[in-house]
Amino acid sequence: MFTSTEDSLTALGRKFQRVRNRTERLCEPLAAEDCVVQPVVDVSPPKWHMAHTTWFFEQFLLNDYLPGYEVYHPRFAFLFNSYYEGAGERVLRPNRGNMTRPTRDEVIAYRQYVNEAMQAYLSNGQAKTEREQYILELGLQHEQQHQELLVYDIKYILGHNPLFPAYLTEKSHHPELTGSLDESYLKVDAGLYEIGYEGPAFHWDNERARHKVYLADYKIMNRLVTVGEFLEFVDAGGYEQYQWWLEEGWRWVNALERKCPKYWFKIDGQWMVYTLHGLEPLSPDEPMCHVSYFEAQAFALWKGKRLPTEAEWEVAAGLFSPEIPESANFAEQESFRTQSRQGADCQFFGDVWEWTQSAYLPYPGYRAESSTLGEYNGKFMVSQMVLRGGSYATPRDHIRPSYRNFFHPHLNWLFNGFRLAE
Amino acid sequence: MFTSTEDSLTALGRKFQRVRNRTERLCEPLAAEDCVVQPVVDVSPPKWHMAHTTWFFEQFLLNDYLPGYEVYHPRFAFLFNSYYEGAGERVLRPNRGNMTRPTRDEVIAYRQYVNEAMQAYLSNGQAKTEREQYILELGLQHEQQHQELLVYDIKYILGHNPLFPAYLTEKSHHPELTGSLDESYLKVDAGLYEIGYEGPAFHWDNERARHKVYLADYKIMNRLVTVGEFLEFVDAGGYEQYQWWLEEGWRWVNALERKCPKYWFKIDGQWMVYTLHGLEPLSPDEPMCHVSYFEAQAFALWKGKRLPTEAEWEVAAGLFSPEIPESANFAEQESFRTQSRQGADCQFFGDVWEWTQSAYLPYPGYRAESSTLGEYNGKFMVSQMVLRGGSYATPRDHIRPSYRNFFHPHLNWLFNGFRLAE
Amino acid sequence: MFTSTEDSLTALGRKFQRVRNRTERLCEPLAAEDCVVQPVVDVSPPKWHMAHTTWFFEQFLLNDYLPGYEVYHPRFAFLFNSYYEGAGERVLRPNRGNMTRPTRDEVIAYRQYVNEAMQAYLSNGQAKTEREQYILELGLQHEQQHQELLVYDIKYILGHNPLFPAYLTEKSHHPELTGSLDESYLKVDAGLYEIGYEGPAFHWDNERARHKVYLADYKIMNRLVTVGEFLEFVDAGGYEQYQWWLEEGWRWVNALERKCPKYWFKIDGQWMVYTLHGLEPLSPDEPMCHVSYFEAQAFALWKGKRLPTEAEWEVAAGLFSPEIPESANFAEQESFRTQSRQGADCQFFGDVWEWTQSAYLPYPGYRAESSTLGEYNGKFMVSQMVLRGGSYATPRDHIRPSYRNFFHPHLNWLFNGFRLAE
Amino acid sequence: MFTSTEDSLTALGRKFQRVRNRTERLCEPLAAEDCVVQPVVDVSPPKWHMAHTTWFFEQFLLNDYLPGYEVYHPRFAFLFNSYYEGAGERVLRPNRGNMTRPTRDEVIAYRQYVNEAMQAYLSNGQAKTEREQYILELGLQHEQQHQELLVYDIKYILGHNPLFPAYLTEKSHHPELTGSLDESYLKVDAGLYEIGYEGPAFHWDNERARHKVYLADYKIMNRLVTVGEFLEFVDAGGYEQYQWWLEEGWRWVNALERKCPKYWFKIDGQWMVYTLHGLEPLSPDEPMCHVSYFEAQAFALWKGKRLPTEAEWEVAAGLFSPEIPESANFAEQESFRTQSRQGADCQFFGDVWEWTQSAYLPYPGYRAESSTLGEYNGKFMVSQMVLRGGSYATPRDHIRPSYRNFFHPHLNWLFNGFRLAE
Repeated sequence: MFTSTEDSLTALGRKFQRVRNRTERLCEPLAAEDCVVQPVVDVSPPKWHMAHTTWFFEQFLLNDYLPGYEVYHPRFAFLFNSYYEGAGERVLRPNRGNMTRPTRDEVIAYRQYVNEAMQAYLSNGQAKTEREQYILELGLQHEQQHQELLVYDIKYILGHNPLFPAYLTEKSHHPELTGSLDESYLKVDAGLYEIGYEGPAFHWDNERARHKVYLADYKIMNRLVTVGEFLEFVDAGGYEQYQWWLEEGWRWVNALERKCPKYWFKIDGQWMVYTLHGLEPLSPDEPMCHVSYFEAQAFALWKGKRLPTEAEWEVAAGLFSPEIPESANFAEQESFRTQSRQGADCQFFGDVWEWTQSAYLPYPGYRAESSTLGEYNGKFMVSQMVLRGGSYATPRDHIRPSYRNFFHPHLNWLFNGFRLAE
Repeated sequence: MFTSTEDSLTALGRKFQRVRNRTERLCEPLAAEDCVVQPVVDVSPPKWHMAHTTWFFEQFLLNDYLPGYEVYHPRFAFLFNSYYEGAGERVLRPNRGNMTRPTRDEVIAYRQYVNEAMQAYLSNGQAKTEREQYILELGLQHEQQHQELLVYDIKYILGHNPLFPAYLTEKSHHPELTGSLDESYLKVDAGLYEIGYEGPAFHWDNERARHKVYLADYKIMNRLVTVGEFLEFVDAGGYEQYQWWLEEGWRWVNALERKCPKYWFKIDGQWMVYTLHGLEPLSPDEPMCHVSYFEAQAFALWKGKRLPTEAEWEVAAGLFSPEIPESANFAEQESFRTQSRQGADCQFFGDVWEWTQSAYLPYPGYRAESSTLGEYNGKFMVSQMVLRGGSYATPRDHIRPSYRNFFHPHLNWLFNGFRLAE
Repeated sequence: MFTSTEDSLTALGRKFQRVRNRTERLCEPLAAEDCVVQPVVDVSPPKWHMAHTTWFFEQFLLNDYLPGYEVYHPRFAFLFNSYYEGAGERVLRPNRGNMTRPTRDEVIAYRQYVNEAMQAYLSNGQAKTEREQYILELGLQHEQQHQELLVYDIKYILGHNPLFPAYLTEKSHHPELTGSLDESYLKVDAGLYEIGYEGPAFHWDNERARHKVYLADYKIMNRLVTVGEFLEFVDAGGYEQYQWWLEEGWRWVNALERKCPKYWFKIDGQWMVYTLHGLEPLSPDEPMCHVSYFEAQAFALWKGKRLPTEAEWEVAAGLFSPEIPESANFAEQESFRTQSRQGADCQFFGDVWEWTQSAYLPYPGYRAESSTLGEYNGKFMVSQMVLRGGSYATPRDHIRPSYRNFFHPHLNWLFNGFRLAE
Repeated sequence: MFTSTEDSLTALGRKFQRVRNRTERLCEPLAAEDCVVQPVVDVSPPKWHMAHTTWFFEQFLLNDYLPGYEVYHPRFAFLFNSYYEGAGERVLRPNRGNMTRPTRDEVIAYRQYVNEAMQAYLSNGQAKTEREQYILELGLQHEQQHQELLVYDIKYILGHNPLFPAYLTEKSHHPELTGSLDESYLKVDAGLYEIGYEGPAFHWDNERARHKVYLADYKIMNRLVTVGEFLEFVDAGGYEQYQWWLEEGWRWVNALERKCPKYWFKIDGQWMVYTLHGLEPLSPDEPMCHVSYFEAQAFALWKGKRLPTEAEWEVAAGLFSPEIPESANFAEQESFRTQSRQGADCQFFGDVWEWTQSAYLPYPGYRAESSTLGEYNGKFMVSQMVLRGGSYATPRDHIRPSYRNFFHPHLNWLFNGFRLAE
């Protein structure tokens, strides 16, 4: 899959450092205290992310392929394994947030130690096997995924503090709407299409095999659902009307006594929203974010529409956005927020992940990776829904049209929105 | 959809009585005490089933369409509504099993009262609207579904009693294997197929619309996985090896400290299984029953295979079992047990529901019923998996090849088994 | 402790039958269905009480002392042991209510079998050891305790049914108030007093040793707090004002969203209360019943008073009610309800158990019984509060002034009330 | 109670600064990360302790008595109120550990701000009322209590980290045993004694009123139970034998699968214990620490003994240790560990709090403080047991022979041990 050349290794070395540095940079605005806690089980401590992504290289690459490598600390594998059963015992997930040691600075020292070993490994003149290159690439992709989770988790930690501290103190980059928000639908004709990944570049096993799907005629929105549209649902009492909700969604609404989307607060009669730039008034033109599948589905039913399937999404994205637009709101923009529509961009990429009406299940011909690393994707193939398109916390070079993200339907701390279909 | 004629009404009246009587007959072997309890939230008390199915006719038909009808008891709607939000308040589901009153005999009196009102309604010479006929049919289908649940629940209640009382005391009808159990696969060629229901007969909204699907080449087992095959997985330590399990499945296994399938007990070194005829040794030739989706999936992975999708199942059933075989083990046989393969029957129908690798989601073109009755199917379309083919507790006249049953993946008290695909 | 004579045995035989028959009589008004359920963990199924008290005689007496005795059923010990660790494995307490078999009638047959064996044992001409007589007496006392619990549990089961069925259908015996309800306090002078049991009659180990206590001057109410008085607390918003409540009490109130005492219901603006005779309006003159320790303590603080200690209670009862009054409302009266004060009775005995401000702890010189039977009292000596005086469900021949009952402070399904001290 | 003079104020100012400084000093060895977390609900974050004790002065003193005082931050009352219902809304206790802001350094700045305001207040030449002096004293006592909790919580946070970091890195001060450990009992004759506080110095309301108690003859150990003695119980299988345990204790042991005391670890066949100086081998001569009431009681029963009541303890301490010994192991010693017996010290004071067999209940004549501050002690008077004598984390000037500490019986993260009586 990969061929080992001097150039490719140097390029990988540079990419390695670039990806790794970004993790530290994401944590820079944080206090040491912010790096420790795990307020709910889904939110991992920032320093855990920093350490876990480092452990990955140590565990799967340096231990096996760098002769004479000494692990930084014998207990770190126990502390920073996430869920790889094949890689031994580990701290139970709900206890991650109780581990005050190693401290953030000690974790950064650990990162540096491993980074240096990695550079030594990459430049030691040994040809790398395909397997090694694969693991290296995997480790970087894995770190990029954790970078995205890191931003979700930082937002959760700060956004649930009564002081509502901003993550970023410089003024928010907040571009004006330059496209139209008129509701309009892209039309796709019935027929046999192909979805999934085929090619030489990195991709996850769950994107294979590329395969044919038959789609009936359908229409799909030419942009994301906006905050302003969702506010109408809230104002219309949508959270009090069972008829729009899935049965599990209705139980979720009632158990949490939820009356509005996550991070919305009505303060002195005005709707405010917590963003990484602090509390601010709602921006009606921006894409709706932080909605569970339940909320997306309820909104769709209230509108007399539905969510698209992942095949419908992928086919439409291919037809109407064959290139990922330059203006797409990805991590590299460092906007750290949703943005209003820019020009005629259909918003398939960036801003918010889009819920689809597809469960996360294997494609025809799917085969899991057979090593410990193969635990990565296949074992989550039940009870979750697919999201597509990436968010403002996703690195642009991490995403593809065939990329399948997946979360349980009740989750809303990630950057998730949606569009409608019919 | 239905046309009202004298004959069709008489036929419906007869069908009504036949279906209704079967509920009482199913409860006849029970003690009054067996009819009360709800040992886990999924298992409803038998007398609740008896009353709830009766309330359905009162609530949705007699109240609206039989002039002068008086409800039997003003509090019964509160007691016997299940989950119809549109039909008012109700006893919370976990409390069903604490309701000792009305007693079983009082519930039977309630059934008789409603049955008589229904016969008066059916024979009062008034033409019935399509809507009325639809509700009537729906009520009977609904009661048939509860009859099936009733058998699951009875088995649960008796099978978790340390005395292991038999439901049926006459000797078990236990036919010999007459087909072959050699593992063999039916081959289906790639192509465009159609699945879903289209036609004039009763069906659920979730079976619509009939639609095209593209299937790649696949092979599907020509029979159900057997007890003997599953025992090999147990003996091989399958319940202790994380690598076969979905992550949620592995947590399920560990949380319950599960070491073998439900209703299996190792007594003095011998594997026994609880059946409705009492405890008996395992019958290796019979179809495996009482496996969660997690267990079915783990077994499949261990075998290097997978489960079929619901489209694959439906297409294969259409190709290889175009008629439901006479020998199929349905409720009318009153076997109250799984049976060994009979002849060349591919076992698509009867015996045990088959897990598929398809999540329970709307078909293209799906529209929920728009009344309170529309709460029936659509609102469950998340987090559940589809099962196909019916079980030995399913009435034959209740099932169709397009019939979609659905349960959460951890459930195993129903009569669920599976076959493999590749 | 006991001496074995022909006469004493005959008397014991008669007492045995009398006590045992009362259990069946208490269950007579019940439907079979009422005998099965366990709506909360503290409430045991009536047929469990019937069987457990029977198992006690089988386990501790017949097995050891009746030559050739055959246990009725080998699994019953597993089903009907309560908490005697020394007597082997048992059904976990929360599962008692799922055991539909043996049925009520089968349990009654079990009772008859054991009763007959007991009569054979009692009349077989063998002298009985002290130990045997002790166990026999213990078994009867134990059954009397369960008879009282049985009435609590029956009330819980019926009183939580939306139909509010009456336990007794004949008209309630509901005597008029004949004493005064003017609040008045009995005065006790400071000094050394003795409490606890000393003597030859049956008593529990927790009533020993009789010992000296020093009491300062105190005053104690000359009657029980009434429904009318407690209603004032409710009307004054006592359940919404944290300042009256213990911290654990306040959490209890809020967790349960409790706004009034158990079994009180405001229906169409009128306060109603569920009694064993069905729903009826509050009777302001009757003693307050079904209050947790938290509620009793909050009421007392609101009144600027406190609860008496158990020593204060026992000394005052000895001084002001040296004999248990004939009019005391005990089980033998079969009133099955609280009653207004009769004459000048200080209500120390009968009607409702009285919370004291004393934790259930060992007396000086306490020694637990050393056999399995010794598990009975000592192992509960933490986290519970003492109640005194008996209730309308307590047999008169079961109680003594030194009798120490004990329950956790949040419990209110028993017949518990209180009086004030200062 | 207090009289306001120039001198007393200066003295208070000095005491104020001394007590306050000690809090910072206790936190000095911690990383910022250690100051944030709340691994279980009972363990509060160190920076929460720092802020909460500061809020106390702001809320109850500066706001009311320092003219023109401005609160440091309007949201801090919400963040740092603990349980004073009368002082408004607050962060729910289980969420304390999710509050990463204000950071530790911001909390220290808050402390300095309040300290300066307090010094201004103390030296502003205004006479202080009794009430003010009382609140000031209360605030300091309160802070001393939190200092002790701080040490418990620090030990919990570090001791549950897989790296077992030491709190103190200098070598442990670990004095040799200089007294005898022969088991010997102090004898006290029956009679009327007095316990409780009476006098002009600071004390808690729960120590009043001083009152008479009658005690029968008793004997009480002349020292604390040691690690070596408790190890015998562990080795004898005490944690597997139900007969020694209270019923709640036995459930606690089984629910937690507890096989040894907290902070004990068997590593490579050797028993190790986590101390604030890191992991070290058991020291058999030191007092046993970190035992719940359940464990203390089980050990006592196994030994054929019992725990003393709080009256027995206080009377014996008065008789045999009329002065608190110089050698007593209190916080001022900064040993941060238990110590072997020194000379003939009966160990009534310091080292570990001693469980008594007395529930935490009001003394005769008890009256709670009537203001918000009165919430302090009285509202906890249920379900807890009394401990006496102070620990190595208790400031010597905080304790008195009449001091009543109280905790729920299952808790073992505090520094709790015990002695026996008979």
